[in-house]
Amino acid sequence: MLQTPEWIWYPGDFEIYHHLLLNTRREERYHQWPAFWRLDDCYHNVRFRKEVLCDHPEEITVYAHGVGHAWVDGIKYPFGKPIPLTSGSHKLEISVARTDGLPCIFVDGVQCASNSTWEANDYSIDWLPAGCNGLYRNKEDDPKVFFFQYEEIQPVSIEQRENGLLYDYGKETFAQLAFENIQAAGDIHLNYGESIEEALDTEHSILIDTVPAGNDSYRCPARAFRYLFVQGAEKGQFELTASYEYLPLEQKGTFTCSNDQINRIWEMAEYTLHLNSREFFLDGIKRDRWVWSGDAYQSYLINNYIYFDPEITKRTIIALRGKDPIVRHINTIMDYSFYWVMSIYDYYQTTRDIDFVAFIYPRMKSMMEYCISRTDEDGFIRGREGDWVFIDWAEIDKTGAVCAEQMLYAESLKAAWACGELLGAGEERYLASYKQLKSRIDECFWDEELGAYIDSFESGKRNVTRHANIFALLWEFADNEQRESIITNVLLNDEVPRISTPYFKFYELEVMCRIGRLDYVSAQIQSYWGGMIQLDATTFWEEYNPDITGPERLGMYGDRYGKSLCHAWGASPIYLLGRYYFGVYPTSAGYETFAIEPQHGGLEWLKGTIPVNGGTVTVALTQEVLEVISDRAGGTVRMNGLEYPLLKDIPFNLTLK
Amino acid sequence: MLQTPEWIWYPGDFEIYHHLLLNTRREERYHQWPAFWRLDDCYHNVRFRKEVLCDHPEEITVYAHGVGHAWVDGIKYPFGKPIPLTSGSHKLEISVARTDGLPCIFVDGVQCASNSTWEANDYSIDWLPAGCNGLYRNKEDDPKVFFFQYEEIQPVSIEQRENGLLYDYGKETFAQLAFENIQAAGDIHLNYGESIEEALDTEHSILIDTVPAGNDSYRCPARAFRYLFVQGAEKGQFELTASYEYLPLEQKGTFTCSNDQINRIWEMAEYTLHLNSREFFLDGIKRDRWVWSGDAYQSYLINNYIYFDPEITKRTIIALRGKDPIVRHINTIMDYSFYWVMSIYDYYQTTRDIDFVAFIYPRMKSMMEYCISRTDEDGFIRGREGDWVFIDWAEIDKTGAVCAEQMLYAESLKAAWACGELLGAGEERYLASYKQLKSRIDECFWDEELGAYIDSFESGKRNVTRHANIFALLWEFADNEQRESIITNVLLNDEVPRISTPYFKFYELEVMCRIGRLDYVSAQIQSYWGGMIQLDATTFWEEYNPDITGPERLGMYGDRYGKSLCHAWGASPIYLLGRYYFGVYPTSAGYETFAIEPQHGGLEWLKGTIPVNGGTVTVALTQEVLEVISDRAGGTVRMNGLEYPLLKDIPFNLTLK
Repeated sequence: MLQTPEWIWYPGDFEIYHHLLLNTRREERYHQWPAFWRLDDCYHNVRFRKEVLCDHPEEITVYAHGVGHAWVDGIKYPFGKPIPLTSGSHKLEISVARTDGLPCIFVDGVQCASNSTWEANDYSIDWLPAGCNGLYRNKEDDPKVFFFQYEEIQPVSIEQRENGLLYDYGKETFAQLAFENIQAAGDIHLNYGESIEEALDTEHSILIDTVPAGNDSYRCPARAFRYLFVQGAEKGQFELTASYEYLPLEQKGTFTCSNDQINRIWEMAEYTLHLNSREFFLDGIKRDRWVWSGDAYQSYLINNYIYFDPEITKRTIIALRGKDPIVRHINTIMDYSFYWVMSIYDYYQTTRDIDFVAFIYPRMKSMMEYCISRTDEDGFIRGREGDWVFIDWAEIDKTGAVCAEQMLYAESLKAAWACGELLGAGEERYLASYKQLKSRIDECFWDEELGAYIDSFESGKRNVTRHANIFALLWEFADNEQRESIITNVLLNDEVPRISTPYFKFYELEVMCRIGRLDYVSAQIQSYWGGMIQLDATTFWEEYNPDITGPERLGMYGDRYGKSLCHAWGASPIYLLGRYYFGVYPTSAGYETFAIEPQHGGLEWLKGTIPVNGGTVTVALTQEVLEVISDRAGGTVRMNGLEYPLLKDIPFNLTLK
Repeated sequence: MLQTPEWIWYPGDFEIYHHLLLNTRREERYHQWPAFWRLDDCYHNVRFRKEVLCDHPEEITVYAHGVGHAWVDGIKYPFGKPIPLTSGSHKLEISVARTDGLPCIFVDGVQCASNSTWEANDYSIDWLPAGCNGLYRNKEDDPKVFFFQYEEIQPVSIEQRENGLLYDYGKETFAQLAFENIQAAGDIHLNYGESIEEALDTEHSILIDTVPAGNDSYRCPARAFRYLFVQGAEKGQFELTASYEYLPLEQKGTFTCSNDQINRIWEMAEYTLHLNSREFFLDGIKRDRWVWSGDAYQSYLINNYIYFDPEITKRTIIALRGKDPIVRHINTIMDYSFYWVMSIYDYYQTTRDIDFVAFIYPRMKSMMEYCISRTDEDGFIRGREGDWVFIDWAEIDKTGAVCAEQMLYAESLKAAWACGELLGAGEERYLASYKQLKSRIDECFWDEELGAYIDSFESGKRNVTRHANIFALLWEFADNEQRESIITNVLLNDEVPRISTPYFKFYELEVMCRIGRLDYVSAQIQSYWGGMIQLDATTFWEEYNPDITGPERLGMYGDRYGKSLCHAWGASPIYLLGRYYFGVYPTSAGYETFAIEPQHGGLEWLKGTIPVNGGTVTVALTQEVLEVISDRAGGTVRMNGLEYPLLKDIPFNLTLK
């Protein structure tokens, strides 16, 4: 039972601590902008324990970040000094407090190596498996510092402009700048830009910095940019190195098809998501760099088709939730609490990771109870003081109970019940509320005359938007008749306002895939995402309006450069292509069984790989033939209404014509 | 409305943050020993707001510890830069995040000066009056650093011993040592001692330090000691300065009497309490330096008769409680949760500080709910997993429901109800539970045959200790008949084991005062406290057994020097003398009315002053005459069964013979 030690901490606290740090780093010109919600912190006083049976004597050393001691068989030892253990069984308990960071320990030993077989306690009653993530394996490490990797990048051009030097790094990046051998007499002013306009607009660019006069060297924190404008120093008066800071992620999904533009979109989507995949799934890398639950929910889904990295999904779920007591909805947004709850069951469906469900379930339950405590007598949830009822940046009638919110609430009740069931402790209340709510939604929001769900029944306006109707199809609130009616009266009805944000376009295009309209989706990908590329995007944007092509394309939220040009939700084509074109998805939790039902979607051919929870499926679809091979058992190919079992490692070929 | 600014923070967070720091500072030879309970932290992301009406234009500057910005009338400004305000009304909101300490702000302005008229918010719904304490009034201050004062102290002797230098500072102290001009070749080893034995026992002394070789100067954290043993350097190889670190407190109570020993005890008690009055009321200054709710409860009562400093009482109450959710009893001890609840109503009775009650009440209520959630079907509270049922270091039958615990629980229910009533929101449930519990205690624990309350009715042992019976008299659980029976069968019955700890001796001596046995109390003060002085105490000890006079007197908890020689509860004579000899106590909240009913207690004469919430009463009692004067209205002198109104500033004289 040889083990190598790793740093361990109270479970979830690594994520909560880094979430705190991340949420206080937003910069806006001369000031900082902490997130506008409660930020929890790690526990600062924790203990760890393990009972070990040593086959042979060994000497261990306990290292810690924080103060405290190791308590071995009733004797206290200081950190950093050898502790002899005889053969036989020993009780180890280690107390550590760190007031300015994450308390954690590293037990350097073989038989007692610190890892997740240790237990951690916050001085409540429960001991839980200690937290660790396999990335802090050296005693010199400090989990207070996040494990990014760095790679030097070079500008593609350095141009002398009237008042300074303009560096172009060729594409959006997230990098640390380091100045060395500084010879300039005065301060050096730096203006970063995702766009050339922003970098050169020294009055308004959002990210700025100053290298104070008199320093020989200066290091900037990592920031998002493509361009850098340097004022106050000539070329030759400094050496500048840019280090791309990134999370190492294995790209497990691949995609090529007969359409070069779509291929380029897929690659750019991957790069967009990768830049936003850091401690957690960020919304965008330049501006907030915060973690938004609704945004992250889409990133989880995209992740499943490209990196299949459960770690970042778990980290994000833990960070978003924070600790009890809950005082506001996640990100203050009601819908975002529901997406958070739903994400856990989705995560389980993808990974079959019951340990994580067991860990997070108490926090899921208190989240659900918080939501339930805010419902009204009729079982509907309405926005209360301090609640942001979001759904989308769109004209939605948000009077009283809002249809889309009730649907999200219902889905989260179902997910919370289902996760409880997995642990043998399903809350029947949640299931009963779900059923009741589902029928109440139909009674109150379905408008037979309009053949659609309305936003609000309380306003009397009977306004129809696509949002609730999209949810109704995605999550089966609509029966077959309602479904056909929604398709005709809403989805294919140009009089219902179009979805304008890439955020909700995710769900819209998904539902278009579900109703078999891949032609529409292919066209949208090319026009919407292709449109950004035509405007020189190197990553996908927070929002895109084809009608605005001048400098105004960069503005948002009343700020000239307020729009994020590298926004995670811009990566949704990866999900759509993987889920509906390759047609790969789990049919039981963790891809123990899964389907492959490819569709051309108007493309002549497509081929690529899709991760399936530890395995990979390779799909090649032309007009003539479908070829599939999987290194994981459990697949079923569905084509033209027929099903074909897919055996592990055995190529499957089907002639289509 | 001119105001000077002060640093402000989220209310309660100053206390909670310093409690975190304090609880991680315990040292034991080569390791540290963080407290074994959950330590909460301040919120790290908060905001402040105020609407101001400026009579004239002014320029303000916002200083902060942390990152963020000031948001003035919708425009964001960085910290540390002037912000112009026109005449008229302005909305100010300041966001600040500090990940490694207490976020706080200082608004340098006249009309907008930061103080408790600002509101603070943790991003929950509620805005509360900002926290501040009047002690951080300079923009250079950082409330992360506690406001101690320092005074250089000199050793009374420096003796060359065989292997080192022995410094004697003449009495127990708490001081920082600073070494300058170090000439020694190697490490200098320091052994601190509350006793000479401890300082010289370099193997076992609890507080040690090493000045590493090669340093020109070295500063030690403040520690408790009287003696210091220095090894590894000769006299002349260093300069040593000791700075006494203390909380400035005004001594409002004074006491002298015809008995010099009691005078000396009173003064030493004052010094003992002062040393333990720091960020909070500590148990003792050498060992844990933690805050224990039961210990602190007694310090609050003593404080009322010496410093009458409501600030330290409030700080201690806030720190002990921490934040929600509650996961264990305070200090893990069930009784200590009850004392905590009771202390708030006591505090109100002493100060009439309704603002504090309003602030703490939500935390009081959640504490009460936590306790209620742990009761059994019969309404009694029993120790559950992880609960420490303490009461006292004594042989108490703790089987099932323990009588003394039920009495404390009942008192806390009553206190919680009463505090709610003060705010117009009394919980009738608490009052009903109190009444029911009181009658159930009588049914289950009163033993008619023994004429006393028994510890446990579940064990069948029907064991009688003094503890519950003392509570029964103090808090009126016993009716008149039971009362007489308890006095005879318990208090004055030598067969019932004596109280041996100074902790519970507090309540025992108080009850002896209540039953008029001041003679017994005077004798106890002289023998017990006087006994410590005979053993060269310069402050009072955690525990004292007259039978042990050798080096064993220093041991406790299995540690040779484990006993604290400067323990707050050792100061109880101050309370007993003020409350029962001078006989001063409030008869309505905040001493709006108060009684003075002096008793000789066997002393020939006594005189002194007693603080009465902003005022002072001076009492002089001889065999012949009683003289009283008060600079606060509302007093009533009670003597020999008669009552005399005491007018403000008008001397009252009564001839006794």
